[in-house]
Amino acid sequence: MATELPPMTLKAIGVVRSKAKETPAERDWWEELVSEVVIDSSLTEALDGLEGFSHIIVLYWMHKVFSDEMPLKVHPRGRREAPLRGLFATRTPNRPNRIGKATVRLLQRQGNTLRVKGLDALDGTPVIDIKPYIPKYDSVDDAEVPQWRTKL
Amino acid sequence: MATELPPMTLKAIGVVRSKAKETPAERDWWEELVSEVVIDSSLTEALDGLEGFSHIIVLYWMHKVFSDEMPLKVHPRGRREAPLRGLFATRTPNRPNRIGKATVRLLQRQGNTLRVKGLDALDGTPVIDIKPYIPKYDSVDDAEVPQWRTKL
Repeated sequence: MATELPPMTLKAIGVVRSKAKETPAERDWWEELVSEVVIDSSLTEALDGLEGFSHIIVLYWMHKVFSDEMPLKVHPRGRREAPLRGLFATRTPNRPNRIGKATVRLLQRQGNTLRVKGLDALDGTPVIDIKPYIPKYDSVDDAEVPQWRTKL
Repeated sequence: MATELPPMTLKAIGVVRSKAKETPAERDWWEELVSEVVIDSSLTEALDGLEGFSHIIVLYWMHKVFSDEMPLKVHPRGRREAPLRGLFATRTPNRPNRIGKATVRLLQRQGNTLRVKGLDALDGTPVIDIKPYIPKYDSVDDAEVPQWRTKL
C-alpha cells in the first residue's frame, strides 16, 4: 500500500540551537532545558501572533538517528528489563519517519527566534513545523496509558 | 540556513479510511467522526502495545492542499473578519511542510487497523507516524491561548 503513494519531501524551516550536543542519560533532563528555535528569516512574518500562546508544538527531524536497522519492537525507554513493545507504542526516535514532536513552553519570541523550555532536541536538529498548542485539539483530560508505561 | 540542511523524505506508513471525502464547513464536525487508520501490513507488529493507550497522536500528510502559493499570513480558521496572523500561529494546512497532527481516541486496534474517533483527515490521507499520547509529554494543564483565538 505504502508504495502506491507519492514521495513526500520535507524542507527544514529552521534549526534548534541548544546546549544539548548529545542525548542525555535521563529523559527528565530535558524538562528544564532552555533552547532556541531559529526559523529561516524568510519566514519571520509567519510567526506573527505565535507569542500570544504559552505553549507551542515543535515538529523536528531526528537527524542523529543513523541506525540502518529499524526493529519493529523495542524496549520502551531503552530499558532492557521492560518487555518488548511495538515501536508505535513508544516514542523511540528510530521509526519509519524520524519526526519528533515536542510540546514546549514559549518563553519569548524575538524576530525569527523562539526561546523555548523543555525541547528534547539536540543542537542542530532541523525543525519542520511549529504549531500553536490549542487545548481543544491537543489536550486530553482523561487519557489513559497502560500500566507498563506508568511503571517505567 | 534552510538550504544547508539535507532533504528529508517521508514514507507513508499507512492511509486514512474515512467517510470524509472533502473538508467539512465546520471544524467541529470531525469530533464525532469515526475513521480507520490502516497501517502497512509489514508494520503490523510495530503496533503491538498501542491498544493499551486510550489516545494516540496521528501525524499525516495533508495531500489535498494543492495551492502553489503559501501566504505567510492567513485569516485564522479562514474567517475573513479575523485579522491576519502568521501561519505558524494557526493550524492552516497550507504550511511549508503539510504535516497534520491529530490527537484522537483509539477505539480499537485489530491487526493493522486502528479505529479512531476525531481524526480530521480526509479519506486517502497518507499517514506518516503514530505515537502514543502520553500526558506527561503531550498535555499542558495551564496552557494559555490569545484572546483572538478563543473568540473564533
